[in-house]
Amino acid sequence: MRWVLPDYIQDALPSEAEQLESLRRKLLDAFRVRGYQLVAPPMLEYLDSLTTGAGHDLELRTFKLVDQLSGRTMGVRADMTPQVTRIDAHLLNRTGVSRLCYCGSVLHTLPSSATATREPLQLGAELYGHGGIEADVEILRLLAEVLRLADVPASRIDIGHMGLFHALAARAGLVPGREEELFGLLQAKDVPGLRTLVADVAEPVRAALLLLPELYGGPEVIEKAAALLPQDAEIAAALKDLRALAQSLSGLPISFDLADLRGYHYHSGVVFAAYGGGSPAALALGGRYDHVGAAFGRARPATGFSLDLRELVLHLSGRAVNGAILAPISDEAGLAAEVEALRGRGEIVVDALPGHEGTWNEAGCDRQLVLRSGRWTVEPLQGE
Amino acid sequence: MRWVLPDYIQDALPSEAEQLESLRRKLLDAFRVRGYQLVAPPMLEYLDSLTTGAGHDLELRTFKLVDQLSGRTMGVRADMTPQVTRIDAHLLNRTGVSRLCYCGSVLHTLPSSATATREPLQLGAELYGHGGIEADVEILRLLAEVLRLADVPASRIDIGHMGLFHALAARAGLVPGREEELFGLLQAKDVPGLRTLVADVAEPVRAALLLLPELYGGPEVIEKAAALLPQDAEIAAALKDLRALAQSLSGLPISFDLADLRGYHYHSGVVFAAYGGGSPAALALGGRYDHVGAAFGRARPATGFSLDLRELVLHLSGRAVNGAILAPISDEAGLAAEVEALRGRGEIVVDALPGHEGTWNEAGCDRQLVLRSGRWTVEPLQGE
Repeated sequence: MRWVLPDYIQDALPSEAEQLESLRRKLLDAFRVRGYQLVAPPMLEYLDSLTTGAGHDLELRTFKLVDQLSGRTMGVRADMTPQVTRIDAHLLNRTGVSRLCYCGSVLHTLPSSATATREPLQLGAELYGHGGIEADVEILRLLAEVLRLADVPASRIDIGHMGLFHALAARAGLVPGREEELFGLLQAKDVPGLRTLVADVAEPVRAALLLLPELYGGPEVIEKAAALLPQDAEIAAALKDLRALAQSLSGLPISFDLADLRGYHYHSGVVFAAYGGGSPAALALGGRYDHVGAAFGRARPATGFSLDLRELVLHLSGRAVNGAILAPISDEAGLAAEVEALRGRGEIVVDALPGHEGTWNEAGCDRQLVLRSGRWTVEPLQGE
Repeated sequence: MRWVLPDYIQDALPSEAEQLESLRRKLLDAFRVRGYQLVAPPMLEYLDSLTTGAGHDLELRTFKLVDQLSGRTMGVRADMTPQVTRIDAHLLNRTGVSRLCYCGSVLHTLPSSATATREPLQLGAELYGHGGIEADVEILRLLAEVLRLADVPASRIDIGHMGLFHALAARAGLVPGREEELFGLLQAKDVPGLRTLVADVAEPVRAALLLLPELYGGPEVIEKAAALLPQDAEIAAALKDLRALAQSLSGLPISFDLADLRGYHYHSGVVFAAYGGGSPAALALGGRYDHVGAAFGRARPATGFSLDLRELVLHLSGRAVNGAILAPISDEAGLAAEVEALRGRGEIVVDALPGHEGTWNEAGCDRQLVLRSGRWTVEPLQGE
């Protein structure tokens, strides 16, 4: 059976492919008018540049290939963000702000969940060169706008901050390796595991780490954290960021989750996940990753988000399909001009190749072009 | 140097990526209004379905990967046409005509020439279910229209026909393997090699095979072939096809080349190559491949063409870049509405994140939004 596809790999047939294309255009246009410039990095790179700064997880998800030209190991991209960071750091080489966006397929060796695809169509926007909270505000507003444009408005955007974890983990004085374990337990909100791991950590850091999973909810969570977490410059700076977001984004359905961490090796400041469409999985993920550019030779403040356009399209209700018009193939006067005029207005006009009577409904035709009293007229397609 | 890409692999930076996106949209729109429905097959398939019906060449050009889920060998697509044929044959399962189009990256293990990329952006249109010459006419007209829309009009479209080769090769009675060798010699117009290979072939077939490389030029070539090639039903049918094309496509820069063959395992009837933009290599290739669907369970007449959008964009003159407008970040009355109105008209409006004075030209800004006598006004950007 040569037509069976691998598991978690699928075709987009006409209706879905059309929805993907239409949404792709709408969202790239929204990026464009806000100054986000489109880039298209390659599907393939040497493995070390693809996974730079991104940690072991991404490497496991990356398909590896041998380059016949160089003998080196290449990877098929599993995430476009490090590629875009490479472009900002090394190729554009701007001193000021760069706003970049992208849309392309990425491949994963294994699906990230039982319902995920191994070929997400990743679309995202990244803002480089501005370390201030204004960039996080812009990116979060842009994410909300993108989901609104896609007709899957965010029902909740959870915001966290890596600064809190970094400050507490540094004060906990864990041996290397344990810190990453701590990160995993917090991310999983595994309180019993957390309790065991921090058993030997001195107070008040131990209590603070155990408190983090409780700190979720509205903006009041920020003040609760300010009152209960240890006095520390990095913690104070993180809470100041979160307060600024609470104020600037008051029109959006934001909530705070101070144990919601992602990308231990990758993220550095504000991180977020957007939910909507009744889906338990996040529709979009993002956050700050200020140190990643350094691996490409130039550290730059960086924040952004990305999402899987295929996942977004699953949440769309079926679009009303605009049927096609069947046109005869003939040299009769006025026919070619009429067909061109209809197509110019965006109508789909299909040339009636001979001998296929009775099959044109199947091809999407619901009307036909016929000559009535010397005028070409669009009529319902009968008798198919 | 983590930012070095593999040879024959490249990023599309903002200006090129924008050109690619704009051309992609224009050409997919042209397909759409003619009834070509967009499909998006996956980057990965099991190797045997990716290379079905396409011969050994395609397999050598295909990157192979092991599927961790099934243990089977997968390939990264090197050509989307067999995928689209699979979709027509097996998934759409229509009895009448299907018109399909597609645009996506393909990967090649080795570049096809010293100037080629290993990651073409393949765009194409395929017409299934109609064996008559009307389908070849439609596809050739569509190809010419696509090149015109891309501002790289065809300077020449060379047309050949696999039927002539098949008929003569069958009559030559070559042992298996020699026929493919004959095909290669004709394709290369290697007359000395051809002379050696056909030395033992009986007349008049021997003379006819030696004549094929001479048969190129205008429509008169068809009549010359009719006069000089052996009487044979398959040859007569092929020449009838070519005569019909000469008549229907008289407005296009077509020429005939009866030894111009491509895809020994793949093509079955009319084949063609379009040239333009001063490039010695063909910009687009196509032709009929009626038997390929059979490998997917259903033989269907099939014809179409594809091209590399990256190659096409190389021939475009630089587009006039529309600069961006820098807007302050502020809550002042009317600012948000003015920014939204400008963006709604397609203007790029960039929010001036604080502290980056002097860098906005670099980010593409040539104008700014300023408040003059209570009105938001677009002015040239000064002093950057």
